[in-house]
Amino acid sequence: MLANPCEKYRAFPVVNLPDRQWPSRTLTKAPTWLSTDLRDGNQALFEPMNRERKLRLFQELVRIGFKEIEVGFPSASQTDFDIVRHLIDAHLIPDDVTPMVITQLREDLIATTVQSVAGARRVIVHLYNAIAPAFREIVFGMEVPQIITMVEHHVQLLKRLTQEHPQTEWVLQYSPETFCMAELEVSLQVCNAAIAAWNAGPQRPVIINLPTTVEVSTPNVFADQIEWMSRHLARREHVVLSVHPHNDRGTGVACAEQAVLAGAQRVEGCLFGNGERSGNLDVVTLALNLYTQGIAPGLDFSDISGLARIAEECTALPIHPRHPYAGDLVFTAFSGSHQDAIAKGFAAQKPGALWRVPYLPVDPKDLGRTYDSIVRVNSQSGKGGIAYLMQRDHGIVMPRRMQIEFSSIVQAMADASETELSSHQIWDVFQSTYLAPCTNAGSMQYISHRLFEDASGQGIELQWLNEQGQPQTSIGTGNGPIAATVAALNLPIRIDSYEERSLGTGAQACAVAIVEASCAGVAGSRFGAGKDANIVKASVLAVLNAAMRLSHCAS
Amino acid sequence: MLANPCEKYRAFPVVNLPDRQWPSRTLTKAPTWLSTDLRDGNQALFEPMNRERKLRLFQELVRIGFKEIEVGFPSASQTDFDIVRHLIDAHLIPDDVTPMVITQLREDLIATTVQSVAGARRVIVHLYNAIAPAFREIVFGMEVPQIITMVEHHVQLLKRLTQEHPQTEWVLQYSPETFCMAELEVSLQVCNAAIAAWNAGPQRPVIINLPTTVEVSTPNVFADQIEWMSRHLARREHVVLSVHPHNDRGTGVACAEQAVLAGAQRVEGCLFGNGERSGNLDVVTLALNLYTQGIAPGLDFSDISGLARIAEECTALPIHPRHPYAGDLVFTAFSGSHQDAIAKGFAAQKPGALWRVPYLPVDPKDLGRTYDSIVRVNSQSGKGGIAYLMQRDHGIVMPRRMQIEFSSIVQAMADASETELSSHQIWDVFQSTYLAPCTNAGSMQYISHRLFEDASGQGIELQWLNEQGQPQTSIGTGNGPIAATVAALNLPIRIDSYEERSLGTGAQACAVAIVEASCAGVAGSRFGAGKDANIVKASVLAVLNAAMRLSHCAS
Repeated sequence: MLANPCEKYRAFPVVNLPDRQWPSRTLTKAPTWLSTDLRDGNQALFEPMNRERKLRLFQELVRIGFKEIEVGFPSASQTDFDIVRHLIDAHLIPDDVTPMVITQLREDLIATTVQSVAGARRVIVHLYNAIAPAFREIVFGMEVPQIITMVEHHVQLLKRLTQEHPQTEWVLQYSPETFCMAELEVSLQVCNAAIAAWNAGPQRPVIINLPTTVEVSTPNVFADQIEWMSRHLARREHVVLSVHPHNDRGTGVACAEQAVLAGAQRVEGCLFGNGERSGNLDVVTLALNLYTQGIAPGLDFSDISGLARIAEECTALPIHPRHPYAGDLVFTAFSGSHQDAIAKGFAAQKPGALWRVPYLPVDPKDLGRTYDSIVRVNSQSGKGGIAYLMQRDHGIVMPRRMQIEFSSIVQAMADASETELSSHQIWDVFQSTYLAPCTNAGSMQYISHRLFEDASGQGIELQWLNEQGQPQTSIGTGNGPIAATVAALNLPIRIDSYEERSLGTGAQACAVAIVEASCAGVAGSRFGAGKDANIVKASVLAVLNAAMRLSHCAS
Repeated sequence: MLANPCEKYRAFPVVNLPDRQWPSRTLTKAPTWLSTDLRDGNQALFEPMNRERKLRLFQELVRIGFKEIEVGFPSASQTDFDIVRHLIDAHLIPDDVTPMVITQLREDLIATTVQSVAGARRVIVHLYNAIAPAFREIVFGMEVPQIITMVEHHVQLLKRLTQEHPQTEWVLQYSPETFCMAELEVSLQVCNAAIAAWNAGPQRPVIINLPTTVEVSTPNVFADQIEWMSRHLARREHVVLSVHPHNDRGTGVACAEQAVLAGAQRVEGCLFGNGERSGNLDVVTLALNLYTQGIAPGLDFSDISGLARIAEECTALPIHPRHPYAGDLVFTAFSGSHQDAIAKGFAAQKPGALWRVPYLPVDPKDLGRTYDSIVRVNSQSGKGGIAYLMQRDHGIVMPRRMQIEFSSIVQAMADASETELSSHQIWDVFQSTYLAPCTNAGSMQYISHRLFEDASGQGIELQWLNEQGQPQTSIGTGNGPIAATVAALNLPIRIDSYEERSLGTGAQACAVAIVEASCAGVAGSRFGAGKDANIVKASVLAVLNAAMRLSHCAS
């Protein structure tokens, strides 16, 4: 870092707008939402979503309530083109949902884009080009008049091409990319050129979409820019003023919120703030911010954890434990005084009354989350905490599905005992559930095993005590000790996953094996664990424990 | 979610401040920073930091440049009391750094707090109590006059107690907790009562700290609240006006930034936004936002990745890949047009000139990050991407240290080939590095192994081809197959960690074992992997591969 950063960076100039109105306004209704999860979000992933993930996320976006969804960049990739056509041809787009497709200003790309969506009931075609000084000079080598001519030319082309498909209702969206970094007068000229070239009017709607392509100023400056544009845009009554915030300065939500106060009618963003670099605006947070101000957002986050899981699977990116509204920790109180105040708040909260439980910005129930797991420290705020304690205190790294299984067992235990469980007590539950079954007198108490080589592969000779305490021996073979153990058990179980890792190092090291098994006639899977210095014995014990847990369910 | 949320939630009222000045101002200098990582951040962790982690983080906060650090809640926990005394008695606090300790308004707690810090050069004692209507009515059952009396009483007590320790320079910090939800007139009365009771003046500084205990409004309302308070506070010239934003609505950074425009001189927060629920203000983001406006923040984030690692270790919480400035993905461009613009920007950027590379809000170099890893898609944006591709495409879950080792190998490969590496090519590198050594003709080419039981534990008979291609046999014993294999190799290596997990299920399943080994005379550790249907064979191969990689280093 430079000692004198002003040699390299400059404060972004404020807008001269002394009579700005937005800071005195209050939010009164939700903006129109545009999800760009399948486009701006998708293009920022290590590997773009495949067709299956894209379609899954599309269905989920529809289910939540998005009425405008940017479905892709069909002129940039055949995959996108095919998915967009599939959505239309297979009638996967509900009547009240409008797809949007983006393209750069190039004749062939615009033609391909129109082909990709022709025949749909209604479509938004999204044209964009960068207009800020750095782009004009460094990237494109163009002056403002050239840019205006270029915009006019391509909007007119789009107008002609779309007129060949009158069965489709066509909407133009124009984005002066890098708007937040451009001179306001330049943005206005370029946008007005697009509005005029499209001949915007009562039957020819246009969306002017103003992005913070990269955040460069405090969020109040962006609000001023939006209010200024809203006052000056031509044919304003036929323009839907939209914003597209990014989050480089961590102020994407604030930019969107204050832009709505300043006159923006439409907001573009992604679920949980996916997108280039620090992400696009998080539409979930903005929508729930509106909700907590008493405004119906028009998006349904009644099962926010389920949605979070789908988003994580589709993007392969995690949601942070402190993510507003959705993170594992946001309805968890750790400090005693917070817990006390929350308890009193719940006691005083009357049904139908205004929400005012301290430290809870929203009733967790409204989002499908529970408040009974909030105030306990160890018994606990969900699987995250239990998994953490198991790893930190005992070195046990649980697979995700095991975390879910185990947290419900611990939660039931905590509810029954009506006390907070300590890390030590949680370990006891882990041990009795996963490690102990085959060491206790009962249906199948492990005595020993012996490995041998066999013509067909790995063999095992297993000795155990049966329910009556009598020693039993059986033999199995397979492609390894686990398969051989399963064969020796002669039970209809299948091993679904297996993990083993060392605890400690050197002579004291031992291994913990974790096995997930399922069985015909038993819903779901069960986990079992084994711990021993010998990795084979740990694995055998894990298989036995999983098998015993399954057989208890089956019997 | 309710269809009509206005039955349960109401919009927070705006402040009547038509002549507000803050939206026309620009940031010109950094505020005073207070780190509350060791207090508000610490209390929101699953398990508070132990002494070692607390001291480590304290040293790091000092190194970065914090001059005010909230070191704990000594009256609430003996651990905190002991750590605070240790900091003072062991002279671990530099002369230009002031520790702060927090306490509630209770006589015995205040007395304990003074004891915990007496003798330090300079101390801030932080008193707080909740004053918003919901707290007055639901939690405490108190009226405003009672609250004022209570504040006056305890501030006067603190004044008396601190006067017994004149060798220490005492500063009062008073926080009307839940300020953002309270009536401004009430906040003002209570703060002015504290200012008067402390007898604030030139030699008796006071900090008035206004928190968004839970965010409840759009960030412009908070700025109005701050500007209003800044105008009305008594003895304003002797008051340091401070803010303590949280992040429930995802607008903590915006609240802080706009509060500074509105007159706040000091900001409290945590590294990377740790803290209750959705976190405290992220001081890293705010400080770097200032930096990108040309303002020296007074905090040093020249090695932001190193700092991120320390913070993750101390808090056991991750930093999200899209976290502004610090996330793995924030200097990565995936789209071709972004990559092209960035390349042109770098080419045009002259040394000493103002920074204007498109899509990069700051020069990554300034933060100790590199830009040569930015524009490549697969060769690559750091270990996160490689690890992701290995897991998604090949089911290989690499331990963290292996990710680091492997990414440097891949990076070197990519640099040498000057092309982007595909997921398939990365897999080839993985295979040749970790899986192949003991299958190639060379120093130790695996043929077979046989396990046997032995009086001393597990035995293994290992067969391999030596460098000359001649079959060799050796025998080792240990407490399991891994230890036996190490013994059979008769090399001075130590196994530091071991992980094994299944790939696929059923008959097609196989196991991947990953072993980390070290060796006297070789710096660091090396990883090896093995893949086989038999978990024992996979483990043996992993040990052989790690051993061969180590012996290549040693020879």
